[in-house]
Amino acid sequence: MKELNPPQILLLGPGPSNVSYRVLRAMSTPPLGHMDPRFMALMDDVCQMLRDTFQTENQMTFPVSGTGSAGMEATFVNTLEPGDKAVVCINGVFGTRMADVAGRCGAEVITVEGEWGQPLDVQKIVETLKANPDAKLCAIVHAETSTGVLQPIAELGQFIKGTDTLFLVDTVTSLGGVDLQVDNWNIDVSYSGTQKCLSVPPGLSPVTFSPKAVEVIQNRATKVQSWYLDLSMLMNYWGGDRLYHHTAPINMIYGLREGLGIIAEEGLAARQERHSTAAAYLGAALTDMGFSFFAAEGHRLPPLTSVFPPEGMDVEGVRKELLTDYDIEVGAGLGPVAGKIWRIGLMGENACVQKANVLLGAIRDFI
Amino acid sequence: MKELNPPQILLLGPGPSNVSYRVLRAMSTPPLGHMDPRFMALMDDVCQMLRDTFQTENQMTFPVSGTGSAGMEATFVNTLEPGDKAVVCINGVFGTRMADVAGRCGAEVITVEGEWGQPLDVQKIVETLKANPDAKLCAIVHAETSTGVLQPIAELGQFIKGTDTLFLVDTVTSLGGVDLQVDNWNIDVSYSGTQKCLSVPPGLSPVTFSPKAVEVIQNRATKVQSWYLDLSMLMNYWGGDRLYHHTAPINMIYGLREGLGIIAEEGLAARQERHSTAAAYLGAALTDMGFSFFAAEGHRLPPLTSVFPPEGMDVEGVRKELLTDYDIEVGAGLGPVAGKIWRIGLMGENACVQKANVLLGAIRDFI
Repeated sequence: MKELNPPQILLLGPGPSNVSYRVLRAMSTPPLGHMDPRFMALMDDVCQMLRDTFQTENQMTFPVSGTGSAGMEATFVNTLEPGDKAVVCINGVFGTRMADVAGRCGAEVITVEGEWGQPLDVQKIVETLKANPDAKLCAIVHAETSTGVLQPIAELGQFIKGTDTLFLVDTVTSLGGVDLQVDNWNIDVSYSGTQKCLSVPPGLSPVTFSPKAVEVIQNRATKVQSWYLDLSMLMNYWGGDRLYHHTAPINMIYGLREGLGIIAEEGLAARQERHSTAAAYLGAALTDMGFSFFAAEGHRLPPLTSVFPPEGMDVEGVRKELLTDYDIEVGAGLGPVAGKIWRIGLMGENACVQKANVLLGAIRDFI
Repeated sequence: MKELNPPQILLLGPGPSNVSYRVLRAMSTPPLGHMDPRFMALMDDVCQMLRDTFQTENQMTFPVSGTGSAGMEATFVNTLEPGDKAVVCINGVFGTRMADVAGRCGAEVITVEGEWGQPLDVQKIVETLKANPDAKLCAIVHAETSTGVLQPIAELGQFIKGTDTLFLVDTVTSLGGVDLQVDNWNIDVSYSGTQKCLSVPPGLSPVTFSPKAVEVIQNRATKVQSWYLDLSMLMNYWGGDRLYHHTAPINMIYGLREGLGIIAEEGLAARQERHSTAAAYLGAALTDMGFSFFAAEGHRLPPLTSVFPPEGMDVEGVRKELLTDYDIEVGAGLGPVAGKIWRIGLMGENACVQKANVLLGAIRDFI
């Protein structure tokens, strides 16, 4: 076996983003046992830092031992039971995936669909919820990684607050990078990922459940279909009686702790501002070079800029050359815009003018 | 936030075991993107090394992006459909967990139960299978981490080979530490963990599926209830068309690659011999000090020695003092032997006389 020696890539795709050396060093710390009281104390610290980042006081806030899609599954399997109604909003890959996951829980899935690249019409969602007051949850993606659209959700949360429905929000590409206020926006359930704006390697999915959601889960008539993701048992490991459930991915949690510590040092507001500034700089320069935006004006997601390259550019060819000849990764389009757009992430560590400049310099070689 | 600086613990419990510095260094390598062709090549290498370690030619061999229990769930949710019959053998915590997971898949679970600390009666299992020729699978634990019993399984595999039933085996605490021959023993489905005899931190679960199992999965009438663990999609990411499914836990896979490389260098047979030698040494010394074995003679699992401390010793008190005053972790008993036994792991890096000596020296202070 050859020694591990991958090239050093500037990760400007839809995630993973580049990771701070501090996080990488933390991950290489020899592990404690998963039942060691000192590891338990560290788990508590991680949960509190996650609460601060989600802007919530939800007790049930912790990282699921899997990647973002495991977090998605954890939120649906715990809240839904067979026969429940789930309203799922779709304007990209991850809304589509949520509908698939909800269906696998045996739910009756009612979709509210919108155009890729456009935000969903909140009024249309509210009307669907009014027509389905028995919906167990309403699920929406805050930051659609497949399109680069930032969805306004506060108004929708305000409406759902007064109903029996749970408000479930995908925050995979917004947590730590754009304004996200779980409590103020009345979000009941949310899942995220570590490899986007947190700049921690993939492998954990921060989740949070409001007291309203926990009550719904505690009153389930049926067992959660996933043992691994069953919140009633996870609650007893991450809090409560500290009962053994599964062996936590200790070194990943070391890395997450360090990443969250870096965010706390910088401050959430400053970090969000840094993402916005970098995205504005990149967007202006790309426009000057003949690129045009895919995501609707006023709804662009700062951590992820989706653009149509200038007429005549070999969209996929240049993207591949950026990787092979410049060690720069940029994301491809998916679904209806496969081969048509690039998805450029300036996330976490990479949300800065310097990294944007490196990419812009490389692109100029193809203009 | 204080700098991460956990004490250095000698991990002689039921896992995690201590990790080689080579593995820790590999894990701190800056990540490639999960769709980068060079990461895909690395994935192929990891799958091949896993095949070598499982002693199988199964194409469908890869690490699930979660800990051992996620691997358990992956094997059951893919093979079982609602209404299927599942024969599950139980003589400890992990057999019990398998039955729970199978039930959550909507299966009719038929259990074959045995005493904790004793191997299961193979003849009794065969009779149960003869009475249930329509059983979709027969699940058994090769190395029961809760009791330290090594279950003979080759004869059972020989019987199941001629039937329509799938042979599903938990190899969490056997892979890389004791003789395990997936193909020769006719094992159709197996899952393991990284944090035991592989000496890689927890976070991944190696799994393998035989062509017979893959055929059963391809002929399913219903969708797999877990999106995250759906083999039909995972197959397309780990092999086949390389379609994006979820973001792989890249740095964990770097660590696994290094751990498997270390095993390849040592050689599987030499590694198993090392585990046996260390366990025999530890067992003899403990016997001299008045300890007695919990697991039945002839069925003791070398990586994990389960013992009753000598009469009069404060079982839990001494175990806690070993952790606080000697930085040595030893596992507690579970279920019917909670507070009665210790579970001592000499796994992976720790399967050597030196580590046994450190523990024995500490124990002498309490005799």
